[in-house]
Order: sequence, then C-alpha cells, then structure tokens
Amino acid sequence: ARPRVGYFYTGKTDSPALSDEIQKIKVHHYQSRPVIVEQSTSVYEAICTMFLEDCGTLFIVDKQTTLVGVVSRKDLLRASMGGQAIETTPVSIIMTRMPNITMCEKEDSIIEVAHKLISRQIDGLPIVKKVDVGSGYEVVGRITKTNMTSLLVDLAKNEGT
Amino acid sequence: ARPRVGYFYTGKTDSPALSDEIQKIKVHHYQSRPVIVEQSTSVYEAICTMFLEDCGTLFIVDKQTTLVGVVSRKDLLRASMGGQAIETTPVSIIMTRMPNITMCEKEDSIIEVAHKLISRQIDGLPIVKKVDVGSGYEVVGRITKTNMTSLLVDLAKNEGT
Repeated sequence: ARPRVGYFYTGKTDSPALSDEIQKIKVHHYQSRPVIVEQSTSVYEAICTMFLEDCGTLFIVDKQTTLVGVVSRKDLLRASMGGQAIETTPVSIIMTRMPNITMCEKEDSIIEVAHKLISRQIDGLPIVKKVDVGSGYEVVGRITKTNMTSLLVDLAKNEGT
Repeated sequence: ARPRVGYFYTGKTDSPALSDEIQKIKVHHYQSRPVIVEQSTSVYEAICTMFLEDCGTLFIVDKQTTLVGVVSRKDLLRASMGGQAIETTPVSIIMTRMPNITMCEKEDSIIEVAHKLISRQIDGLPIVKKVDVGSGYEVVGRITKTNMTSLLVDLAKNEGT
C-alpha cells in the first residue's frame, strides 16, 4: 500500500498545517514603529503624542535612550481624570517601570507574544534589543493587538508571511 | 493515475485549508459581553465604568435600550484632558452617534469584522440585533481586537472553533 505522507486536509478539527504555519511567524514580520518619549515629558505632552501618533502605548526612555517605562492609554486616562496637574507631572510618575515591563525580541514567535498580550491584559509590547554596554534595553519596535488583527486578516487571505 | 483529491499541505504559500477554516468562524464564536451605559451618564461615570469593567469601548443607549452611540477610551481621554467639567457633561456630548457607528451581527464572518477594525482604526464594535418594533438596534455583544488576538492564539493551538 502507498504510504500516507504529508498532511491531508480533513476538516477544521484536525489541521496541523494551520497551527504549523502560524507558529513560524516572527514578531518582526508584523511589528510597528515604536513611539518613544523621554521620561521628563509631562503627562499632558505624552497624551498629545499619543493622539498625534495615534497609538495606544508609549515607551519611555532615559537620556541614553534606554527603556525605563511604558504607559498605556488607560494609565493616561487615569492620570487625566484624577485631577492631577497633568501639565507639570512628568510621565515617569505614572509609568510602569522596569523590571515590571513585559517585553519581547524581534525573533520571538508572534504567538508567544499574542499569549502575553492576552494573559497580562495589555494592548502592546515593546520589541527590545540588549544594549552593547550596560544592562539596559533599547526599543526597536512595537507589537500590539492591532498587529495581531492584521495577521489574522492576512491568514484568512492566505497571505500570512 | 490516481486522481489528486482534497488538499495537500505544500508549504506556507499555498494553504487553502488555512483560509477556509478562518472564513468559517462567526462573530458569536468569540464575542464578549457588551458594556452599556445610558446616554445621560456623565463622562466621569463613563470613565469609572470603563475602569471597573476593564473594557476599551462603551455602548450608549437611550431609555428604550436602543443603541444611540459608542465611546472609546480615546474619546474619554480627549474629553478628560480638555478641561471640560467631566462630572456634569453627559457622555452623549462626546459619543460617536448613529448613523456613524460601525456595527456587526452575530452571524457575520469574524474576518469581515477584523477587516473593519483595521480599516476604520477602531478597537471594538457592537454586535447588534434589529429591534422588533421601530428602526433601532439592540446591543447583544461586543467584539474587539482582544477577541481577534484570542482567536489567533486558538488557531495556533489548532483550536479555532
């Protein structure tokens, strides 16, 4: 008898092809440009940057452009409604700081990152690279639930990278 | 010669199985519970509801529970930083109104909705049902980029509904 080799499409409950393909997709195939502000920036300016760049997550860096924090639209909304002086409060006061930042690297599997977004209930992650000197990270990209939605659309069009 | 029937897995550039499976998934397979507030609710209370329910989009209804508007986290952030009196401003002042609301129904293909989320740059949509009397819609669910990310994770685990 002829040996059964390769995969056969047998319906939606058994499609190894599907999950195999998705597993191969890396973060850098779908990443966005990071939006970065310096830690002394005011909360007010950070909100303006978020609107101008139309993003949901900002990455905060120090003077050496090393990642020190992350702020989400939710963090900014909380600060803004709290009646704080958002023009004079630096964004560093309200940011999530290292080492509590969930990060990824550009060669990571996109599905691992999708898992992190769901399990930690966040909208986006910084894609980082270790800096050559010292112990910090440089931000090289951003990956969000919007990128995940685009990937899903591409898979349905049979165009997943 | 033996006829080639069915689909064969020939690598990531040619996988009809993949897109076929995704096309079959409906909105109701991945929907979330809608979070609804009445149109006379203040912007301040709407923000509190958004934090309590941990959602990114609120649906606004009239006294007959007919959908009249949608507000996003972005709309609330804009109102909040604008120095308006958010305790006394009703949410109906800042909402996106009918007929400008992008909606879907529970039997719609989830991929169509993913397309809408991307092309209209929104985080979530109301899932609606026509009301029996009159011309309005009742909100029966919510579908967001978070649901799309969960679907992607399930597909990678080979568990897409």
